[in-house]
Amino acid sequence: LTKERNGLTRTLAHYSVASRYEDLPEVVQHEATRALLNWVGVALGGCREYPVRIAAELASATGGRSQATVLGQGVRTDPASAAFVNCIASSVLAYDDAHLPSVAHPSGPAVASLIAIAQARQVSGAELLNAIALGIEIQCRVANMLVLPPSPFHPSIYINGFSGPIGVAAAVARVIGLDETRTAWAIGLAASQASGFRATHGTMTAHFRPGHATRAGVLAALLAERGFDCTDTALEAPGGFVDVFAPGADASIALDGLGNTHLMLTNRYKPYPCGIVIHPVIDACLELRAAMPKKATPAQIRLRVNPAVLTLTGKRSPRTTLESHVSVFHWVAVVFLRDRAGLAETEPACISDPEIGALREQIEAVADPAIGKSQAWAEAVLADGSRFQAQVRHARGSLERPLQDGELDVKFRDLAGTILPPDEVEQLRQACWSVASMANVEAGLGVLLP
Amino acid sequence: LTKERNGLTRTLAHYSVASRYEDLPEVVQHEATRALLNWVGVALGGCREYPVRIAAELASATGGRSQATVLGQGVRTDPASAAFVNCIASSVLAYDDAHLPSVAHPSGPAVASLIAIAQARQVSGAELLNAIALGIEIQCRVANMLVLPPSPFHPSIYINGFSGPIGVAAAVARVIGLDETRTAWAIGLAASQASGFRATHGTMTAHFRPGHATRAGVLAALLAERGFDCTDTALEAPGGFVDVFAPGADASIALDGLGNTHLMLTNRYKPYPCGIVIHPVIDACLELRAAMPKKATPAQIRLRVNPAVLTLTGKRSPRTTLESHVSVFHWVAVVFLRDRAGLAETEPACISDPEIGALREQIEAVADPAIGKSQAWAEAVLADGSRFQAQVRHARGSLERPLQDGELDVKFRDLAGTILPPDEVEQLRQACWSVASMANVEAGLGVLLP
Repeated sequence: LTKERNGLTRTLAHYSVASRYEDLPEVVQHEATRALLNWVGVALGGCREYPVRIAAELASATGGRSQATVLGQGVRTDPASAAFVNCIASSVLAYDDAHLPSVAHPSGPAVASLIAIAQARQVSGAELLNAIALGIEIQCRVANMLVLPPSPFHPSIYINGFSGPIGVAAAVARVIGLDETRTAWAIGLAASQASGFRATHGTMTAHFRPGHATRAGVLAALLAERGFDCTDTALEAPGGFVDVFAPGADASIALDGLGNTHLMLTNRYKPYPCGIVIHPVIDACLELRAAMPKKATPAQIRLRVNPAVLTLTGKRSPRTTLESHVSVFHWVAVVFLRDRAGLAETEPACISDPEIGALREQIEAVADPAIGKSQAWAEAVLADGSRFQAQVRHARGSLERPLQDGELDVKFRDLAGTILPPDEVEQLRQACWSVASMANVEAGLGVLLP
Repeated sequence: LTKERNGLTRTLAHYSVASRYEDLPEVVQHEATRALLNWVGVALGGCREYPVRIAAELASATGGRSQATVLGQGVRTDPASAAFVNCIASSVLAYDDAHLPSVAHPSGPAVASLIAIAQARQVSGAELLNAIALGIEIQCRVANMLVLPPSPFHPSIYINGFSGPIGVAAAVARVIGLDETRTAWAIGLAASQASGFRATHGTMTAHFRPGHATRAGVLAALLAERGFDCTDTALEAPGGFVDVFAPGADASIALDGLGNTHLMLTNRYKPYPCGIVIHPVIDACLELRAAMPKKATPAQIRLRVNPAVLTLTGKRSPRTTLESHVSVFHWVAVVFLRDRAGLAETEPACISDPEIGALREQIEAVADPAIGKSQAWAEAVLADGSRFQAQVRHARGSLERPLQDGELDVKFRDLAGTILPPDEVEQLRQACWSVASMANVEAGLGVLLP
């Protein structure tokens, strides 16, 4: 163990207990509000998908005191179970968020857990936002420590399953008022539930895992609150979290600048409902579509992309919504044929459309390591031989080009509008933006949740 | 990936679905009954310990449909939550069982989950016993594969957290009647929750983990039952369970002789409530105590023990019950001063007894690699200079000297008697032995649980 790693658990616990909304820079306060708005929208958009309905059915059959809302299902249950189902809902459309350095998706576990706890307890809007910022911050830092060199972290470990429970435990501990020692226990109990691997991506289990990570963190905090103990060195001890899963990882990556540098500001909300590496390609194709004659369809399409695009999303012929999330070919074809890249393009009718299927076959994609992860190059060749080219340097939703508040509003309306009438969408949207001033989140926001 | 590993998940699922009580050898049927009796006793003995009361309080606050008994707490809740609390109860006294090759403790997760499910559903005694045998068998096999060479499994990974969910998922899937594909999904969902490390041993979190493993397996089976899917290769796929946590492990260790060789027959119930490596030392000291003059106390005690005894249980001066579980010195002292090694010897009053504390200081223990894990040598030197020596080749409860049915009865009465009157202890003991003939486990056994 390196010297730097000593005290990792206690340092994170101390940071959690000391954190206050009033002390956060204004940009961090605002970013926490954006994370809330984005999460509520994407969770509402996803809450009636099949895997979510199954999880909600199980929650309903299990019972659980009626304290928190299972979104869109007419079910209320205990906070841990509600957070579990709602985090599956916010994950299932692949439309949530991404912390690009670690490719973690921290807002789902953070917001799903805190909304559920805020419904069951007296929590103010400022406390909620502080805890959202905290939960995302700790997840980004733990994820970076696990993923970045010198960590030997296995690339197929599911990062959210390891960073998620810890961030959730710290954030929930904060809003329920645990002291530093019990917060350290909660972090240890959460770390002892860290789990998951990537081999089951493309099935519902991919979305079970953020839900499970969320529940694990909530349970850890609720057990620690009652005095269920752990050591206060679970992360850094020999035989502990880092030693077992990422031996040699550098704890200073998690700790450097804590309280000054807010990594949560580098978390990004997705503009398109699919794998983040596809996004620059979509931008390039939207640009080509706008430049081409309106009715023209390309005879051939050529792409030059970062190698990760083909590794992670190289499925040529997706058959299901879940598979469309990892098919760059699908998104290129739909952009040329439908001039958009939204939720409708993940519907089974679109995926099985023969015209779209045929165009997927006309795409030639070349992996080019010189092209960055938020970049892409695309060319469309029309039947008359004319050519159109586009180059994207910074995709929408990339580090350099985050979605603006207005773009988040459009995304929110699109998603929430799938299950709520327009007036309720607006009421909820305004409540999310004004949460900081609420004395009680359940009274101001929770009651608006369907 | 080695060729042998192909089909690991499906092979285990197929074995689970095809398993029938009627096809089990009589010794396996009987061993499953012994596992049940031992588990009910040890869970009743532990069910009012502090960590269990906290977990039960949380289960009670959470709610959950009144379908399964939280032992000894006057609480009923949903099966997954009841199984979680009851498995903590059966773990907390360190008195449960041990599969010596892997040092897994498989009966807690298997029986805690199945009793809870049997209370909620129509399950016959034969179905229960078949599933208990199955759950223990799969845990022993998965644990061996993870722990034994050529697996590079980290020695501080908590083995029950990895083998437990998988065995529970397969066993619960069997009693609720899942087909092979859904059983494979359940195994995958369970594997994706595999978690835990040993750095938090000595705290309540050590006992949280088997409870968590149990709940994970139950949830996996209940989700798969409703159609929540996974791949059917989660254990063996690239980026899957074995690849990520034990790359290079030999799947044939899990599969060889499946259906013919029953590893569950090598699982052992503990005769003393402490770490298994202390047991031969206790046997040696009991032998010395019987040979020495009744009122004599040794002036000095010399031990020669397997090195693991001092590594795992070398705590000279325990302060708590949990620490007494890992103090060979404590158990040697109490055997000489109290001539027994039972639950009373883990009580705070005994641990803080100054006479016992003083004798702990007079013990000299030497690690000797020539001494096997179920062996020990001890010498007592009296004040008059006389010496007594004892050598144990096979400890009680070792592979070669399993507890006999009558010894399990004595252990059951001792444990169940801590919370039940004698007539109810006898009624429950007889019900456990006759469970095979019950048409409905809840009607025959569940109603007797306090």
